Amino acid sequence: MTEVEEIIDRLERQADDETPENTPDVGIIMGSDSDFDTMMGSGEDGDRGGAYDALTRLGFKEQTGYHDAPDARFTFETYVVSAHRTPDLMYAYAETAEERGVDIIIAGAGGKSADLPNMTASVAYPVPVIGVPVQEKSVDSVIGMPTGAPLVAVDAGKSFNAVLSAVQFLSLRDDELADRLTEYHDELRGNVADVSREMHDGGAEAFRDRS
Amino acid sequence: MTEVEEIIDRLERQADDETPENTPDVGIIMGSDSDFDTMMGSGEDGDRGGAYDALTRLGFKEQTGYHDAPDARFTFETYVVSAHRTPDLMYAYAETAEERGVDIIIAGAGGKSADLPNMTASVAYPVPVIGVPVQEKSVDSVIGMPTGAPLVAVDAGKSFNAVLSAVQFLSLRDDELADRLTEYHDELRGNVADVSREMHDGGAEAFRDRS
Amino acid sequence: MTEVEEIIDRLERQADDETPENTPDVGIIMGSDSDFDTMMGSGEDGDRGGAYDALTRLGFKEQTGYHDAPDARFTFETYVVSAHRTPDLMYAYAETAEERGVDIIIAGAGGKSADLPNMTASVAYPVPVIGVPVQEKSVDSVIGMPTGAPLVAVDAGKSFNAVLSAVQFLSLRDDELADRLTEYHDELRGNVADVSREMHDGGAEAFRDRS
Amino acid sequence: MTEVEEIIDRLERQADDETPENTPDVGIIMGSDSDFDTMMGSGEDGDRGGAYDALTRLGFKEQTGYHDAPDARFTFETYVVSAHRTPDLMYAYAETAEERGVDIIIAGAGGKSADLPNMTASVAYPVPVIGVPVQEKSVDSVIGMPTGAPLVAVDAGKSFNAVLSAVQFLSLRDDELADRLTEYHDELRGNVADVSREMHDGGAEAFRDRS
Amino acid sequence: MTEVEEIIDRLERQADDETPENTPDVGIIMGSDSDFDTMMGSGEDGDRGGAYDALTRLGFKEQTGYHDAPDARFTFETYVVSAHRTPDLMYAYAETAEERGVDIIIAGAGGKSADLPNMTASVAYPVPVIGVPVQEKSVDSVIGMPTGAPLVAVDAGKSFNAVLSAVQFLSLRDDELADRLTEYHDELRGNVADVSREMHDGGAEAFRDRS
Amino acid sequence: MTEVEEIIDRLERQADDETPENTPDVGIIMGSDSDFDTMMGSGEDGDRGGAYDALTRLGFKEQTGYHDAPDARFTFETYVVSAHRTPDLMYAYAETAEERGVDIIIAGAGGKSADLPNMTASVAYPVPVIGVPVQEKSVDSVIGMPTGAPLVAVDAGKSFNAVLSAVQFLSLRDDELADRLTEYHDELRGNVADVSREMHDGGAEAFRDRS
Amino acid sequence: MTEVEEIIDRLERQADDETPENTPDVGIIMGSDSDFDTMMGSGEDGDRGGAYDALTRLGFKEQTGYHDAPDARFTFETYVVSAHRTPDLMYAYAETAEERGVDIIIAGAGGKSADLPNMTASVAYPVPVIGVPVQEKSVDSVIGMPTGAPLVAVDAGKSFNAVLSAVQFLSLRDDELADRLTEYHDELRGNVADVSREMHDGGAEAFRDRS
Amino acid sequence: MTEVEEIIDRLERQADDETPENTPDVGIIMGSDSDFDTMMGSGEDGDRGGAYDALTRLGFKEQTGYHDAPDARFTFETYVVSAHRTPDLMYAYAETAEERGVDIIIAGAGGKSADLPNMTASVAYPVPVIGVPVQEKSVDSVIGMPTGAPLVAVDAGKSFNAVLSAVQFLSLRDDELADRLTEYHDELRGNVADVSREMHDGGAEAFRDRS
Repeated sequence: MTEVEEIIDRLERQADDETPENTPDVGIIMGSDSDFDTMMGSGEDGDRGGAYDALTRLGFKEQTGYHDAPDARFTFETYVVSAHRTPDLMYAYAETAEERGVDIIIAGAGGKSADLPNMTASVAYPVPVIGVPVQEKSVDSVIGMPTGAPLVAVDAGKSFNAVLSAVQFLSLRDDELADRLTEYHDELRGNVADVSREMHDGGAEAFRDRS
Repeated sequence: MTEVEEIIDRLERQADDETPENTPDVGIIMGSDSDFDTMMGSGEDGDRGGAYDALTRLGFKEQTGYHDAPDARFTFETYVVSAHRTPDLMYAYAETAEERGVDIIIAGAGGKSADLPNMTASVAYPVPVIGVPVQEKSVDSVIGMPTGAPLVAVDAGKSFNAVLSAVQFLSLRDDELADRLTEYHDELRGNVADVSREMHDGGAEAFRDRS
Repeated sequence: MTEVEEIIDRLERQADDETPENTPDVGIIMGSDSDFDTMMGSGEDGDRGGAYDALTRLGFKEQTGYHDAPDARFTFETYVVSAHRTPDLMYAYAETAEERGVDIIIAGAGGKSADLPNMTASVAYPVPVIGVPVQEKSVDSVIGMPTGAPLVAVDAGKSFNAVLSAVQFLSLRDDELADRLTEYHDELRGNVADVSREMHDGGAEAFRDRS
Repeated sequence: MTEVEEIIDRLERQADDETPENTPDVGIIMGSDSDFDTMMGSGEDGDRGGAYDALTRLGFKEQTGYHDAPDARFTFETYVVSAHRTPDLMYAYAETAEERGVDIIIAGAGGKSADLPNMTASVAYPVPVIGVPVQEKSVDSVIGMPTGAPLVAVDAGKSFNAVLSAVQFLSLRDDELADRLTEYHDELRGNVADVSREMHDGGAEAFRDRS
Repeated sequence: MTEVEEIIDRLERQADDETPENTPDVGIIMGSDSDFDTMMGSGEDGDRGGAYDALTRLGFKEQTGYHDAPDARFTFETYVVSAHRTPDLMYAYAETAEERGVDIIIAGAGGKSADLPNMTASVAYPVPVIGVPVQEKSVDSVIGMPTGAPLVAVDAGKSFNAVLSAVQFLSLRDDELADRLTEYHDELRGNVADVSREMHDGGAEAFRDRS
Repeated sequence: MTEVEEIIDRLERQADDETPENTPDVGIIMGSDSDFDTMMGSGEDGDRGGAYDALTRLGFKEQTGYHDAPDARFTFETYVVSAHRTPDLMYAYAETAEERGVDIIIAGAGGKSADLPNMTASVAYPVPVIGVPVQEKSVDSVIGMPTGAPLVAVDAGKSFNAVLSAVQFLSLRDDELADRLTEYHDELRGNVADVSREMHDGGAEAFRDRS
Repeated sequence: MTEVEEIIDRLERQADDETPENTPDVGIIMGSDSDFDTMMGSGEDGDRGGAYDALTRLGFKEQTGYHDAPDARFTFETYVVSAHRTPDLMYAYAETAEERGVDIIIAGAGGKSADLPNMTASVAYPVPVIGVPVQEKSVDSVIGMPTGAPLVAVDAGKSFNAVLSAVQFLSLRDDELADRLTEYHDELRGNVADVSREMHDGGAEAFRDRS
Repeated sequence: MTEVEEIIDRLERQADDETPENTPDVGIIMGSDSDFDTMMGSGEDGDRGGAYDALTRLGFKEQTGYHDAPDARFTFETYVVSAHRTPDLMYAYAETAEERGVDIIIAGAGGKSADLPNMTASVAYPVPVIGVPVQEKSVDSVIGMPTGAPLVAVDAGKSFNAVLSAVQFLSLRDDELADRLTEYHDELRGNVADVSREMHDGGAEAFRDRS
């Protein structure tokens, strides 16, 4: 069995698993490990954050072993799945998503032929997929689905927002998530107000000279 | 009270309403009545359908009176809300959405400054918004939200898909909707198979000469 | 068994078939029957021709029954295969292509997410695929394959040229096809020379007044 | 009261203020403090200048306290106002502009959904707004207002020119401003003439070798 | 004297005129008479209106003879001025604008080299110019002025909005215009409210079937 | 000898001709007879004219027989030359241009691979070529020549202007052509002045109602 | 004889050669030596590889002397051929390709007028050409061939994929090449699986901190 | 007299000069001194050259004093002329060109409103102008002239080619220039042949390792 087949086999066994109670709520897949920083955030200073940062900020835990769920109400998992180099793995991930208990898939891909989000959405249906174009030139390919083949997209590189949106939808059945979203947002708003007051009350010249 | 103020007043009274049990699940707003055919579908031959067609196909009923909910489990409502001509109405619709019991907003706007979906999402947060660019040139404006301000988008004119996506998310808490989505999809797939067989087995020349 | 499953089943049985000697050399697939005129040619006056016209011009016959091959050295087949509505059919077509004896696949798709050629190429590998963007906006999605995932493309709507290219490659192992290509080209060149002489020798004013 | 609410409260109290005689003529708002260098100018060598540089050049003073107007005939103020993170602040700023005595608003925003100038213009109407796209990709979103919703725009990053234009309009009622504009322009023209003469009379080779 | 020289001569004589009290407030120029419908409005059903419609709506009268001003407080004039075919006329119009008492120039041009608004702004300075790109492809050329050369622009074809903006700026010195702008806007808002109520209360199906 | 070879043979014989005194000054070539209307003008009402109209207006005569030059000082000839279907004819036309006495070549081609002007310029060098992109999408291909390979271009479809430019260059050695250019231009300028006066003096409303 | 003529002479002598049995299967040409890194691969760390890397990986040997073929079943050759500076060399290379025994030409060019692949395809016909746009802005020019003039293209800079595609077509007559392609692909797939497992099983935080 | 007026005065005096025998053949103007490197060439290693390099290569001398012509048959001059900041200087330069004896003007400008080449062409007519877009985003503005207003353009930054083209046109009346062009070209072609032979005969691996 090749390495690809081993992962497919694992996914299919998990799908057949009798007790899917501890399953990841959100599945994050990306077309290449070179998409990692855009999809998950680089963790470096100045980086505006990716899916990992948003999930962590909202209290989600990463599930790395399927039968070994983290001690948290909300969880996610991460895989590299290449539509063009490993179409069988992509197909298997999407096809087993519902049985594996994944509620929402966030799929990111770069290049002009960013097929991963679209194909995953087509196979995983009716499990919803939020597409993340990893590059500006990937936007058209991700968003352009034909009538009858649903997928929703965020802007290029906006994996952080993809998580916020996913959690908005998950909060339709869980009020605690709505509270966490609001709490996060209040902090964000406070930051805007602080800098606004600093710029206005201190004046532009002082602001220009800060740091 | 102007006509705009009257609608705002109505929305605010509904938000204060004690018993929001019979509320529309999906709120559909558009920036202008000239967006109607794209957002809801023209109903004419050859039209690939809009939000109204998708909602009807999936068994949703339109709620035209707030206290007079239709006899159906799943409902929607429709409003014209112009971000640029009636910003106060847009603000009021978005701000009251949560209290009025709207679960998901589908907002469509045309032009290059298609601000309605974005601003509605910013005010209605954490109620999720699916943006529909009414024209190709509206895509950038709708999808380009900054980090921290979530909105998901479909492609230009794909209001039908916006409903499919919305229902995918609503089905996270209601299995009946997942069944309806699958039933719709099976029919769609059967149509592809029928025409594929006809074209292959009958040959291209016969297919070219049909009708 | 659904209609889609029936076609998949047929393809798989053909792949297991012991004697693939009479198999189509070229397989033509398109994402929707609405792509037919662009992919095959409408046959109407003024139409510059599609794959069907090119194949016919070069002496290929269409094979509509698998076990009932036409009496010709060179053959093709045609299917509608939707990547987004019937991903299982697309997967099966691509996966069985090699065993079914298809030498080159010409795959056309429209829209901004024109995934059919790309995904077919990824699954059918090493069977080569020539992608045909059905619309101008499909070009980026079709051509933009990442390193390691080969696909060659023609320009938007140039299904006629896709056949010429396919036959150029097939002629690497069959000189008769090279002769047919040259014969076709000589006629084309003669047409250019005729109109050039007419315009020059008769003068622009007479040419403007023709027809 | 949150920080955002405090600023809103301040704006509203100023709007109710009885004696608006010492009010800023020009209000400058930007969607994020990361827009500062583009909107106001970085003050670094080689920077072509922003709104702050233009205003200073034309003798405007910054007003940082509302009741503590600077000792100058022409003044401006600066705020950070995020359309997507603080829509309530944006709404309040725009709605109070007329009462607060702001004559012209210069609003800058980046990204593809640069809604701040547009929404401010819609709410502040009939107070005029000059929109500054902070990035090239913001131009479409800023300029694309529908019929009936006026806004004028300058090119991406041209906050310096936005001030020149604003002062051109203000000079319709104050001749002193027209004089200042002309004086600035004469200097600019002299610089062109100087370098033109140097390049021509000294020759291209010498010019290439300068510095 | 050629026809062009005659118009130039007339403009220069008007500039020297001692009593410019009855002068047009707004000067409208366009690069070609083929721009008329876009710049002024075709007056046909379904046309969303041009500068002429906006000016008329706000009570402006057209001044066709210079010494024969209309009996109205606010006036405008209209000329065809081609930057590329009659650069001398363009130069003369812009250079005499200030002396002729024109307060704001609205200049429209089509094509990719839409130089008229830019060059007029450069020569007429400090008289402000609002540029109207007559075609989508004219936007870049109109808006892209370098630092130090002010011009504000509206979107392609938005001559109606150019007038609204011009009047916003003129209302800085004349409150009556602000009132007229508000009155116009209230009517516009009422129309949105009416159609919104009709669509919501009557339901989408009835709205689709209207007319 | 094929038809193409016959034309090539004719061109080469003309190049060897001893007495090239009566040779066409301007050679016009186009990639396909479908480019005729754009390159030469359709002659229909409303058409703004092509190369044929410009040449005729400036007194050039078409030379249809090489040894049978028209009785005029300035002449041109016209050929269809396809870079992709008849590269040998293109090569021969360009290579013989200098010996055949063609001073300037105007070459037009459509499509995204509009190679005819570029390749003709490369082979005919140092005979200058003015490229005419027949479609908007041909502009990039025509204008984008690398350093060392000169070609000048006009805008898409501007074959009329290509002739004006060619004649400007030819007038460097023949003052009569400069006079003809000026005479043409004076008429053009008079037309602008006439319509400008009509629109201004008659007023916009009358102009709107004309015809 | 100039240097260019010497190469042309060599190509023509090789075409006349009686025994073309040891000829390069694949001919690689590029418009400039500045295209080398994109066309062949820079060989530096992080470079994703070019045609040279792909050919080497699949066991092809470079043939640098025509009569001195390398000891390998599959071979290639490399030339710089400028369409615009050496059109005669381009013409000669393309015209002699068939007689010289080149089966497939891979032609790369940069700039907006990337004519080399197109013109080579037009002259070398029926020898097939795979075009490689060296820059993103070269894609349109390379792919946009008119009906009747076949050429297939890969995406900008994808010279590695051009070789994979070429070998797919060559494998139609040689099964050994199909095996090599599959072996290469299996390795590629294994790499995806390895990194996918590492990211999932180790968790995103550990993956972020790697290296 | 301002500095600008002084240059205008000088140009007008030169135009009135009785003996224009020693006048620059080519006038080079640019919109800003920041365009110098693109227009004239930076003279640094790796720079592909600008107008100055091309003119020098072809034996032209720069004329820096009008009455002090260099001792050479072919000459040029250089000025900075800003269309937007010094429209009067631009107008004067263009208007006096014919009388000052300038045969061809090469005009370069950057930005999206690159009006200098267009306006110079309109005023200088019938003196021909070759436009050089200094930036990619300047191409549309430079090339897009309307019917009746001739201008020819080269690609963005191709000032070197603008000179080659200008000299091609000048060589229509002076064979010596044609010889110089051919001599330059032969050298260029030799360079291509040298590197082609080196790459082919030495092999790709050795070429990759060079330097």
